[in-house]
Amino acid sequence: MDQKFLQKLVQPATTKIVMLIMDGLGGLPLAPGGKTELETAHTPNLDALAERSSLGLSMPAGPGITVGSGPGHLAIFGYDPIEYEIGRGALEALGVDFDLGPDDLAARGNFCSVDGDGILTDRRAGRIPTEKCEELAGLLRSIKIEGAELFILPVKEHRFAFILRSSELGEGLNDTDPLIIGVPPMAVSASNGLSDKSARLINQFIEQASKLLADKNPANMIMLRGFAKLPHMPSFLELYGLHAAAIAVNGMYRGVARLVGMEVLEVNGITIADEFITLEKNWNDFDFFYIHVKKTDTYGENGDFEGKVKAIEEVDSFIPDLKALHPDVIVVGGDHSSPAVLRAHSWHPVPTLIYSQNVRPDGITKFGERACAAGSLGIFPAKDIMPIALANAGRIAKYGA
Amino acid sequence: MDQKFLQKLVQPATTKIVMLIMDGLGGLPLAPGGKTELETAHTPNLDALAERSSLGLSMPAGPGITVGSGPGHLAIFGYDPIEYEIGRGALEALGVDFDLGPDDLAARGNFCSVDGDGILTDRRAGRIPTEKCEELAGLLRSIKIEGAELFILPVKEHRFAFILRSSELGEGLNDTDPLIIGVPPMAVSASNGLSDKSARLINQFIEQASKLLADKNPANMIMLRGFAKLPHMPSFLELYGLHAAAIAVNGMYRGVARLVGMEVLEVNGITIADEFITLEKNWNDFDFFYIHVKKTDTYGENGDFEGKVKAIEEVDSFIPDLKALHPDVIVVGGDHSSPAVLRAHSWHPVPTLIYSQNVRPDGITKFGERACAAGSLGIFPAKDIMPIALANAGRIAKYGA
Repeated sequence: MDQKFLQKLVQPATTKIVMLIMDGLGGLPLAPGGKTELETAHTPNLDALAERSSLGLSMPAGPGITVGSGPGHLAIFGYDPIEYEIGRGALEALGVDFDLGPDDLAARGNFCSVDGDGILTDRRAGRIPTEKCEELAGLLRSIKIEGAELFILPVKEHRFAFILRSSELGEGLNDTDPLIIGVPPMAVSASNGLSDKSARLINQFIEQASKLLADKNPANMIMLRGFAKLPHMPSFLELYGLHAAAIAVNGMYRGVARLVGMEVLEVNGITIADEFITLEKNWNDFDFFYIHVKKTDTYGENGDFEGKVKAIEEVDSFIPDLKALHPDVIVVGGDHSSPAVLRAHSWHPVPTLIYSQNVRPDGITKFGERACAAGSLGIFPAKDIMPIALANAGRIAKYGA
Repeated sequence: MDQKFLQKLVQPATTKIVMLIMDGLGGLPLAPGGKTELETAHTPNLDALAERSSLGLSMPAGPGITVGSGPGHLAIFGYDPIEYEIGRGALEALGVDFDLGPDDLAARGNFCSVDGDGILTDRRAGRIPTEKCEELAGLLRSIKIEGAELFILPVKEHRFAFILRSSELGEGLNDTDPLIIGVPPMAVSASNGLSDKSARLINQFIEQASKLLADKNPANMIMLRGFAKLPHMPSFLELYGLHAAAIAVNGMYRGVARLVGMEVLEVNGITIADEFITLEKNWNDFDFFYIHVKKTDTYGENGDFEGKVKAIEEVDSFIPDLKALHPDVIVVGGDHSSPAVLRAHSWHPVPTLIYSQNVRPDGITKFGERACAAGSLGIFPAKDIMPIALANAGRIAKYGA
């Protein structure tokens, strides 16, 4: 659905919506004919909720498309993840849990090797160990750029995330990686006037980095690519009239939530219990709560079927606490699938439940992949979750007379 | 899904995909409460495959839309059949197995009858027998057009296919058939400058044809309509990175497969068995195989319910041979429905099964219309089959991080 159409119909209400996202929720059976992680989990509370819910399978970005957490979250927040693409530099920063803001210009960084004449001899600096990367990132952090803040975060081997924070930083910049050896890394130049300041500051950084690393062979130079800021997106308040809060422990999710205008709440601790305590504490102050559970994805990506089952069961144990707050609408779903058997994100559509007093319940007494396949939401785009949740919350006016 | 978006995510793999298409597969019960052709057929092998598959009902061009085989095939090949329209002339040429190329302008031809003043007296020349059509087509082939090659292929009764091959032939041309008798056939005129050359050459052809046929009453004149070139389409290799082969006996299907860049394999014979032998023989040389079974549609259009049931059962008997090749992904479906009770193509969505080791199986133990209606693919656009098949074949990279 077109966001502008929806936006025009949004009306105020005093209702509250909770969106509980288990990262990588969707799964697969360990063997043909078996049960998925969610189907295996003992989830009496989610099952009871399912019985009073509409169920379906959500697709983050279309059939067959496996998404990262960035696009997966944009979709469940109601934004077309293909229309709103998050650039590679910004993704790299979010991916190492950097709390990226609107004034931040991010890039992917590589340590590389150059000879005495500054000619590239190895684009990956012999894939230095991550420990070395951490040490050199620390060195780069000592660089001072006038009128800007600098953040350097080690990633893995020769890779790091580069973030420059200042006003008026355009992102129209070329990569400095020439993609071949035998030539020097390129300088940054601006493809438009809005990016002149960015180019000037980044070239200053590169020059200083080059000096600092001169004796650090093989990692005696750096290259930067994929310069990107976060895309500008209409906020939850503008679009939906919702004062929204995010409860998430990991930086990537906090970053995406902030991108759509949610207030990111401080969680005192890192457990699911800590997240639900945060929910209770802030219950009166917001219309919408996004709660993110990371564990399910972590276990899925590690191939730990049983661990993912247990994580789902742990989430299930907090459903009574959630119900006790009497939210008007509860969405339970995921940003994508991460089946333990695949040890990776996957394209399989994601079990989703929408609960409210006004929903037409499917009467299906189980929350699971096959149960959701039989649900009345069918197999549907994840970006349709928000309009349905808003409708159930009495927040969408009638169209036409 | 946008093809360009998908194309950017395609990654190489060594996996193989087989798409087995039973033409006009979808059906209807003979009487209310009864079973469709597919539901009636004894298909133990397809049923076993279904149990390990995701099932759904595919719509070639949207709800309520009945398609011909051209658009139906474009959809299952992943091309929006509304965006990529194949003109009538081009379809006629493909339908008689003509190897239509990018320089070819095709039209549907009719023999017709005119009186001494050139006034139309019969738009179909009394439906001359096909043998007569073949003889007269041979006569028309003797016509020489300067700077162009000419191909005339008899079709059936008074109909033939007309193809002109030359550079820079535009297709912006009117039909010469006035649709009523009592007036002369029209000349061709160009609706735009790009089609001037086409109009000039075709009018030359018509003039010469008129002279050649003068004493061949009732077929003493011709009319041409539906001038069309093939639309330019990105190939399977460009779009999906797939080296694709087509196994089809009938010309129309070979033509559409060639249009999307498949290599059309020679089948030694015309039976389903011959087609599967061709599959085995070429197994090592391609990533993707399209196998077309015509019989199901033929029986459907003839109103032969039992014949269609038997044809489906025959296809079922080859599933073990197919499985023995260990394809990574198997798609079984159709290009449209052709219920025997309707004796025609119909708009009913088409039973579809997608099998792979990585699919989330629905656990439905039957392949049939109602079984597929309960499947996790839901009722879905046929053009989504390819992305899902590619995902299951490990050929689509993750979008975003």
